[in-house]
Order: sequence, then C-alpha cells, then structure tokens
Amino acid sequence: MSPDLLAPPSQTSAGAAPADFKGPLRGLKVIDAGTMIAGPLAATHLADFGADVIKIELPNVGDSMRHWAPIKDDRSLWWKVIGRNKRLITLTLSKPRGQELFKQLVREADIVIENYRPGTFERWGLGYDVLSRINPRLVFVRVSGFGQTGPYAKRGGYGTIAEAFSGIPSFTGFPDRPPTLPGFPMADSVAATFSAMAAMFAVYNRDQGGSGRGQEIDVSLYEPLFRLAEAQVIGFDQLGIVKERQGNRLAEDSPRNTYLTKDGRWVGISASSQKTFERLALAMEKPKLITDPRFRDNASRCTYADPLDAEISAWFAERDFSEIAAIFERADVVAGPVLDIRDIFSDPHYAARGNIVSVPDDDFGEVRMQNVAPRFLGTPGEVRHSGRALGADNREIFIGELGLSEAEFSSLEAEGVI
Amino acid sequence: MSPDLLAPPSQTSAGAAPADFKGPLRGLKVIDAGTMIAGPLAATHLADFGADVIKIELPNVGDSMRHWAPIKDDRSLWWKVIGRNKRLITLTLSKPRGQELFKQLVREADIVIENYRPGTFERWGLGYDVLSRINPRLVFVRVSGFGQTGPYAKRGGYGTIAEAFSGIPSFTGFPDRPPTLPGFPMADSVAATFSAMAAMFAVYNRDQGGSGRGQEIDVSLYEPLFRLAEAQVIGFDQLGIVKERQGNRLAEDSPRNTYLTKDGRWVGISASSQKTFERLALAMEKPKLITDPRFRDNASRCTYADPLDAEISAWFAERDFSEIAAIFERADVVAGPVLDIRDIFSDPHYAARGNIVSVPDDDFGEVRMQNVAPRFLGTPGEVRHSGRALGADNREIFIGELGLSEAEFSSLEAEGVI
Repeated sequence: MSPDLLAPPSQTSAGAAPADFKGPLRGLKVIDAGTMIAGPLAATHLADFGADVIKIELPNVGDSMRHWAPIKDDRSLWWKVIGRNKRLITLTLSKPRGQELFKQLVREADIVIENYRPGTFERWGLGYDVLSRINPRLVFVRVSGFGQTGPYAKRGGYGTIAEAFSGIPSFTGFPDRPPTLPGFPMADSVAATFSAMAAMFAVYNRDQGGSGRGQEIDVSLYEPLFRLAEAQVIGFDQLGIVKERQGNRLAEDSPRNTYLTKDGRWVGISASSQKTFERLALAMEKPKLITDPRFRDNASRCTYADPLDAEISAWFAERDFSEIAAIFERADVVAGPVLDIRDIFSDPHYAARGNIVSVPDDDFGEVRMQNVAPRFLGTPGEVRHSGRALGADNREIFIGELGLSEAEFSSLEAEGVI
Repeated sequence: MSPDLLAPPSQTSAGAAPADFKGPLRGLKVIDAGTMIAGPLAATHLADFGADVIKIELPNVGDSMRHWAPIKDDRSLWWKVIGRNKRLITLTLSKPRGQELFKQLVREADIVIENYRPGTFERWGLGYDVLSRINPRLVFVRVSGFGQTGPYAKRGGYGTIAEAFSGIPSFTGFPDRPPTLPGFPMADSVAATFSAMAAMFAVYNRDQGGSGRGQEIDVSLYEPLFRLAEAQVIGFDQLGIVKERQGNRLAEDSPRNTYLTKDGRWVGISASSQKTFERLALAMEKPKLITDPRFRDNASRCTYADPLDAEISAWFAERDFSEIAAIFERADVVAGPVLDIRDIFSDPHYAARGNIVSVPDDDFGEVRMQNVAPRFLGTPGEVRHSGRALGADNREIFIGELGLSEAEFSSLEAEGVI
C-alpha cells in the first residue's frame, strides 16, 4: 500500500454534510461495518439515495477494496465506486474502546450492515442482543457466505463459492466447457441488493407496521441467487428436470441465442413469442420459416433449434451489423448487440439516460462512473463524490458529532483505536 | 391453453385473508399490473414478506407465464413460483370500465408495479398524473427494457437484449466462444429486486421523510446490471480498460477458476488473498508454490495464471471430489463444488437452512420450491401458497372488497371486463 493512502483528506475534499444529501432516504442513518463487496455495496445502494452512511475501516489498513484492481497511481478505481457517497471513519472493533465508540454510533443508527464471518461480531461483544439493548429500533443486517446457521455457516464464503453453490453455473455456458461463472461479482452484488431491500422491509415494519422495533436479518451470498433461479426447484421436484448447459440457448425459448455478424459483432436475439418470431422471419425475408412445421410454435422451435439457428446464423454471417440494425429497426424486431464499454461510452441511449456521471474525486479531480439506479422522478438519488481517503471524516464524526476532545482524539489515533 | 386453466378455484384453494399474512410488510397494499417476469417478480418479493399483492391478469388469457416451460399437465410450474403468495383477479385495463375498477383499487394502494411498453398506461388513461390525483400517496413503479426516456425507450425490451446491452456478457465466458448469457433471467430478476428495493425507498420517503407523497420510479432492465458491473466504467475512463472474456478466470484475482476432479465434478476456487492462497498451496502439499516468485502475490499470480492453473488442475485431476473436500475441510480452504439441483436436494446445508419448502398447491396438492430470501429473525416471510388459477380471488375482491353486486359481477364477466 502506498503511504499516501493514509494521508489526511485534501483541502478540496468533496464531502458534504448529511443535511445537504438528496434522495428518498434522506434522514436515514446507516453504519457500514462491512468489508469488500456484499455488505459495503448494500450500504452504497442506500447512500446513493440519500442515506447518511458512515463506513468503518481498520486504522492504517483500510478496506481491502482499496487495494483491488483496477489500480491507478496506487489508488483502486473500484474503491472509488463502492466507497462513493459515504462518510469514512476508522475504528478498531476488536478493541474495547473501539467497541464503546461503535455503540455510541449505534445509538443513533437505523441500520448496521456487516459481513464478517458468523460469530465475529459476537466475539467483539457486538451481537444483536447487545446492540438491540442499546437501540431497539436498530435493523442489523448480517451478510455471510452461507448464512448465520447450518453446517457450513462457519466456512468463509466468497462470491465464487456461493455462485457455484447456487446451482446457476451448472446451467450457464457451453455443454463442452466448464460451468461458467459470471464476469462480475454476481453473488456479492445480488446479495447486496437483497440486503438493502430487506433492510427497508424491516424499517417499514418498525415504523409503519407498528412494532417500533428493528430486527436481525440473515443474508447469505448463495440464497439470493437460489431465490432468483425461478423454476429450478419445482422443475426437478415435479418433473425431474436437471437443467443443463446449452450455450446461449434456453431450453424453453427458441430462437434465443447470440449470432455473429459479418463484421464480427455478436447480437443477442430472443424471439420465442409467436408474433416476435414471425416479425423476425419476415425481416430476414424468410417467410418459409413461419410455415415450416418444425418452427410452427415455440415448443416445436425448441426441438428444432439446431436447423433454426443455422438459418439465422447464415443470414447474420452475410451482413454487417449496421445493415442488420437498420432492417430490424424498420421491422420492429428487437435484437441486442453485445456492447462492450467502448460501445457504451458512445451509445446515444446511455448518454440520454445519463447513465455515466462525472463525479468529484479527491485524487483525480473528476472520474466517470455509473450513475445511481433506478431513476426516481420525485426525489432522485445522486453521486455526490467518489470513495475518499481513509478516515476522511474522522474529525467531523468523532469530535464534531460524538463529542471527543482533541486530546482524546489524538490519543485514540496513537493507540490505533481510530 | 387448457380450458380448465379457466375453471374457478377449487374448494380446497389455498388462499388466506390478508389479515393472516405474516412478515415485515404486513399491511402494505400492492397492485401487480405487470406481465411475465420483471414487474411480477418485484411484486412477489413484496408478497413473500407479507404485503397484500393483488395481481391483475387479462380475462380468459392470463399472464404469459401461465404458458411458460416447464409445464406439467398443462400447468406452468414457473407460474406457480412467480405467482405465489398473490391474490389474483382478472381485469381488462384497455376497457373504460376496467380502468374505473383499476382506479378504485389504486385508491387504497401503496404501490403499483407495471412493466408494459412505455406509453401503454398513458394510452389507457392510467399515467402517473392521473393515478397520483386519485391517490397522492401512491408509488408507481414502471419497469421497461430501456426505461421511460431516451431514444430506445419505445423498443420492446427483453431480458436477453438488456443483458447484452449492459456490457456484462462481453466479459463473461470463454475468449474463443460467444459472449455468454446467463442460464437464468438475470436482467429481469435483478431489475425486479431493484424495483422492490426502490419502491420501499419511496415508501420511506413518503412516510418517514415527511413528504406524505408517493412518486414515479423508472426502472429499466439494463441499468440495474450496469450499476452492478462495478469498475467497468471507471476502469475504461481512467485506464482505457476494456474487459475481455477469460473463461472462469478474473483479470484481478488469481487463482480463480473452476477445476475438474478425477470423478468429473467441477469445483470453483477463489484464493486471491495471500492467506487463502497459502492455505491452498499447503493443503495441496505444494509449499513451493508459495516461494515461487511468479506466485508471490495476487498481482504476480494474475500474470502467471496459466502455470498456476496447470499446477492446481493437475492436482485436482488425480483426486476424487470427496477426497479433495476432506483435505480442504481440514485445511480450512474454501472451495465450492458446482452443484446442480440434484446435489442441492441432498445437501445438508440447504436442508438445515430450509431453503426448499413444500407449499400447498391447488393442482398438485403440494409442490416444492425455493423459500423466501433473506431470513428475518423477527418477522420472517413465508410462502403461503403457489400461484393459483386465473381469477381465483375475483369474487372476494370485486364483490367482497369493491362492493360490486352479483348482477354487476356477472355482466362484467360476460363483457370480458373481468
């Protein structure tokens, strides 16, 4: 780690006081006591929409995301995204004085999110029993690989492991290749989204449901994916179906695949509904596909996906992407080119939607990253600033809000508590 | 479609009154005016946690999911999952009398979710301007392929198209194969989760944020995925990185891959942190990997991923999965076998977590499907029943709650309004 990661925030630091935050969650107080992706990203979802998120990192060390690729000038660019919109403090939760300060923060918090191995917060004397006595309104979200209970609970859980465990890779990819893992942290980021959603369910129950109390929520990395794999369980239970890898086809949809254009672009098509299929056949000037008994309905097309794909592939192979796009536009056929990030930067729809925002950054002046999602028409979220330096808000929070004296602040720094 | 899909619900129908619903969202009133996956699944997330979800389908036709594979005895099994926990009515929103009844429902609703092509609800006279005059507290969630604005807004949007458009498939899969699409409806189900999350953000803003007003939320299918692809934008913006397909490796982690055991099982490993890597090397009895300068840290291991993967693959190829699992268990190495649904049904952790539940079903008595996620310790969600017959709750809702007379009810049925 570069030593200047530890430097105090610059004078031009892009922070803003919670009173200025915008978005539907303005006024919600959240502590991000997590590390790496799943817990912190749940907090970023809330921060993107105006919650006051205080993120806790280990003094001198910081979150591991600060060292994750891609790196520019010793700074992790990924950190700048996942750490955005948060106020940042350092605190050693394994030390008694750190635990006291944490409890002081918990007194005012609506939500605490953590994602250490099950048992860690209990070992620190910060289990739900303790925290809920301090603040009965607290919602305590625990994220872990395998959840807080069950025989594998104590195993470390990484996203890759959870993805493999969910069943989804077993039917993703090509049959002659290994089960395919996604190229982004799917398990972590889906679990993060479930965590933010669930936290707000619990806040609703506390405030509108009349209980007045928060609760503990146990989120694993594999269960959200397992939840989303819609008919996997019932299909096996009722019909003995074990889904298999079949490339970009789907057993239940045809045509559904990616096709290669003459100029080397991949285009995704999903045209299983009869109307969509017929539009596609006419656009390709192949009306005989519609009357061919093999392709008469989706079920039959699934049986004859090989010859159907051969017809479509041959047509694509003879044309450049721009020609195909124009034909499909006229015929109202929906086809999706596989974009890469270069394409995305020049796409007019991405531009019109404002999906890429330029954000104040303490190191590089401005950086571009994805905007908040989704779009609220009444109280939109926003990206105020990127992830900042370690302990950027220590002084504001420990002295300004928790009321430490300058002397205490300095001695806690010296002891490695903050 | 089988004609008995249209039969009235059986006497043993597994419905329950909203007063008996359990979960944190008890009391929340939701109208699912969507179709297929993204909108309806957002509503199912809310229904799983106790919201009273009234789902609207077209009379005599029903949601397209009722005809989606897998099918048993003319019944879609997928429908039974996505339609679970909802009260079901039929209503033709394109007819004036249908629009009146819809407005009557909207009066009491907290949230309406729809996912038709942008402009459809406006054409029916049911845009946000109209609905918010009827009920200013309403949160109106609009899900669409490309969002409500921008040059592609009017295009139909399917999950496949949105996935391709998000950029993720361009770096998922093997470099010598097409960009790989996921084997489950990733774009739809991630957008559904964002929708449920966002709806609760807006409810919080209405109730606790002091506005007292709901708002319109514009969710596209591609933006949630684009949001989750963490460093894609900033990596290109700051370093010109265009992520590429590299199978089950990740550019920034090594070792991270799937490895084949002697008995043909695929096992995922992600051991990029130094401690994890060293535990793996020792468990394989290959301490020289730790001292090999090519593998001294994660960055260097990424450069030399080929020889490192060769070492690990060779070790896996000589051993059965059970032997490897025992070695890793002793050495606290986390590795994830790629499970399929057969494995999942016999896995002790899935059993201990209660991830598969047996659910009352009007057609088949009981069916098994995935349980709700995540686990709430105070007010858990539950699966009360599977997706039921078309119009199962017409009588209860139109006569019992909206106060139609028997005569009106019959004539609306005859006119195809309900």
